[in-house]
Amino acid sequence: MTFEAKLAQLAIRTGLNLQPGQEVFLTAHTAHLPLVRAIAVEAYRSGAAGLVPLLSDDAVTLARFAHGGEAALRHAPAWLYRAIGERLASGEAARLAVVGEDPRLLAGVPPEKLRLAMAAHAKAYQAVLAPISRFATNWTIVAYPHPGWARAVFPDLPEKEALTALREKIAVATRLDATDPAAEWVRRADELSARAAWLTDRRFAALRFRGPGTDLTVGLAEGHVWKGGWGQAKNGVRCLPNLPTEEVFTMPHRERVFGVVRATMPFSLNGVLVKGLTVRFERGVAVEVRAETGQAAVEALLATDEGAKRLGEVALVPADSGVRRAGVLFLNTLFDENAASHIAFGQAYGENLEDFDALSEEERRGRGMNQSLVHQDWMIGSEAVEVDGVQEDGTAVPLLRGGRWAFLV
Amino acid sequence: MTFEAKLAQLAIRTGLNLQPGQEVFLTAHTAHLPLVRAIAVEAYRSGAAGLVPLLSDDAVTLARFAHGGEAALRHAPAWLYRAIGERLASGEAARLAVVGEDPRLLAGVPPEKLRLAMAAHAKAYQAVLAPISRFATNWTIVAYPHPGWARAVFPDLPEKEALTALREKIAVATRLDATDPAAEWVRRADELSARAAWLTDRRFAALRFRGPGTDLTVGLAEGHVWKGGWGQAKNGVRCLPNLPTEEVFTMPHRERVFGVVRATMPFSLNGVLVKGLTVRFERGVAVEVRAETGQAAVEALLATDEGAKRLGEVALVPADSGVRRAGVLFLNTLFDENAASHIAFGQAYGENLEDFDALSEEERRGRGMNQSLVHQDWMIGSEAVEVDGVQEDGTAVPLLRGGRWAFLV
Repeated sequence: MTFEAKLAQLAIRTGLNLQPGQEVFLTAHTAHLPLVRAIAVEAYRSGAAGLVPLLSDDAVTLARFAHGGEAALRHAPAWLYRAIGERLASGEAARLAVVGEDPRLLAGVPPEKLRLAMAAHAKAYQAVLAPISRFATNWTIVAYPHPGWARAVFPDLPEKEALTALREKIAVATRLDATDPAAEWVRRADELSARAAWLTDRRFAALRFRGPGTDLTVGLAEGHVWKGGWGQAKNGVRCLPNLPTEEVFTMPHRERVFGVVRATMPFSLNGVLVKGLTVRFERGVAVEVRAETGQAAVEALLATDEGAKRLGEVALVPADSGVRRAGVLFLNTLFDENAASHIAFGQAYGENLEDFDALSEEERRGRGMNQSLVHQDWMIGSEAVEVDGVQEDGTAVPLLRGGRWAFLV
Repeated sequence: MTFEAKLAQLAIRTGLNLQPGQEVFLTAHTAHLPLVRAIAVEAYRSGAAGLVPLLSDDAVTLARFAHGGEAALRHAPAWLYRAIGERLASGEAARLAVVGEDPRLLAGVPPEKLRLAMAAHAKAYQAVLAPISRFATNWTIVAYPHPGWARAVFPDLPEKEALTALREKIAVATRLDATDPAAEWVRRADELSARAAWLTDRRFAALRFRGPGTDLTVGLAEGHVWKGGWGQAKNGVRCLPNLPTEEVFTMPHRERVFGVVRATMPFSLNGVLVKGLTVRFERGVAVEVRAETGQAAVEALLATDEGAKRLGEVALVPADSGVRRAGVLFLNTLFDENAASHIAFGQAYGENLEDFDALSEEERRGRGMNQSLVHQDWMIGSEAVEVDGVQEDGTAVPLLRGGRWAFLV
């Protein structure tokens, strides 16, 4: 089997757990066509009713910034996103995202143009994100090499070799090198789900991250729920939302984040590489932001709306993940967030709050849930960062030490 | 300027006549990406608010037929087509189609599978066709080479040379070889519009086609209107719907077509090549169908619904067209229909009926308008086929002789 066939099989059968008669709504890049074609074969073999691919393309994306006027930068196809969102909300279409683009694609775009375009996209795309974040349907994300991505990860290799090297790293991180990748992922997902259940039962008041440049307390939402591994969609299908996935994650309290945190890895923010980010939080709000590169992009992100300055997710990742084993900085959140513990600016996930569906908007906010048009992960964990669970009485329970789980399940 | 840049400029500025602030909804094939990218540049330069490309792909299309079950063959993304149709109906999005696929792509698909898929597509895609056929917005169609298309047109050339040859033929047919292609098309469109006006004023009762194997009388709808050249969309934009376009066309009467007609060129029907088609009509209905190849595909088409067996369009094309000048059988309707007079099974165009918007469904039918989920052109004209306009009193007025116009405007 080719790399593409293996990855397509894992994505459709294990990640998406596609049900016969479902449609597959697919987003991918024109550079991902070999995988898209393998996905089509695997989807129809698995009983898909149809496949609807929406492909992005670097040259088309860049044409907008190079030649589009302000109206073009302020525009997003809201009508299309609404239709997609409604379709996903029905649970009849599963949603498969293939990621992996050039992390430096938009590096030359003036920040003001980027800000306009990001804001327009975030607002309109909310219609697609909403049914995904409340798990109306089964969904997953996988990654496939793109020449620009491969060049960014392996700047010293010729493009063709860089693509091969990146494919191999993706294979390792996604455990496609195992004899039975699906069985590996079932085992891993079971463990993550068990750890999430243990953490939920503990009802920690906060998490504390301590390490070089970092002393951060992340208060947790009242009634927070830890998730990890399997996702249970409302259409009755159990899926594995990210491939790879190595995290357990929950909901921070929007007003209870204090202290300073330093990113432990660079990350790509809408095509701009952000390096050396340090942020100071007061009462949940990022009040000081510094970065070695990409500071303007971070500031643009935080200016999107009031919730963009607050946290919507906190996640724990041990250091023995497949991503860490791949031993490379992927410059892609799907991988890098699974190499290290992380937090996210912006929108929280409804699945991380007890009784989410029964609560009013005001009640959700009262519990500490953050709302925003954006959701941006960044990595703050490493072997050198200790993580404790802080109980109501102030006592600390070790959760991660030296990058390893400090509790048994 | 590259071929792609020239064609994109002609498509956006002259064909679509894109207005600043409009979105462009684009359908194309993954093999058309070089043109799609040039279109993106030209669209944004011309003030487009956005570009929404929907790309098809041979391997994805074939996967459905190779691996999809009956549910997949009966399925079409109706939700997506509805959303697109509503967007086009608003007039805020212009619609650009890039055509040019492998005419033999589906030749190996069992006819029964093809029939199911065609019926499902035709029904769902009606939502997109409806606003186009009633000219709710400005639209145009252009063509770009595809390797399978090039191989079909130039079977004796290696693929790369075949692609180059096809590109050159497209350039000739689309008059991109002129010093000022846009000016050429304005002149041509003016002439076609004038001929259409002359023909409408004549109020012919019928057209008569006589030539080798053909003696066909096509009664015209009561209150029929001839169109050609410029199209006036209801959003106020004047566009040139096909590039190339060399035809004037009107609405046959659904019950008044009699006689026998032989196709003068092969054509591609949903990926199947139809050669040597002969059809006998009685009271508007195709009652006998024979073809050297592709007969099953034609029969499947005619079985779609009651209107598929009747005519929805009749068009006159002189022999001095750019397409004829290109001197090749394109195996693509956009070109071949502009090389010869033609008729179309299926849906009629509302623009070809006087007071269309004011008439009820029943009144439209009473005037002779045909309704169907399909619209399939096929060529019946040549230098050897004479065309007359038949007046109410039975006298005949020569319209085409030896492939040339027989009337002055």
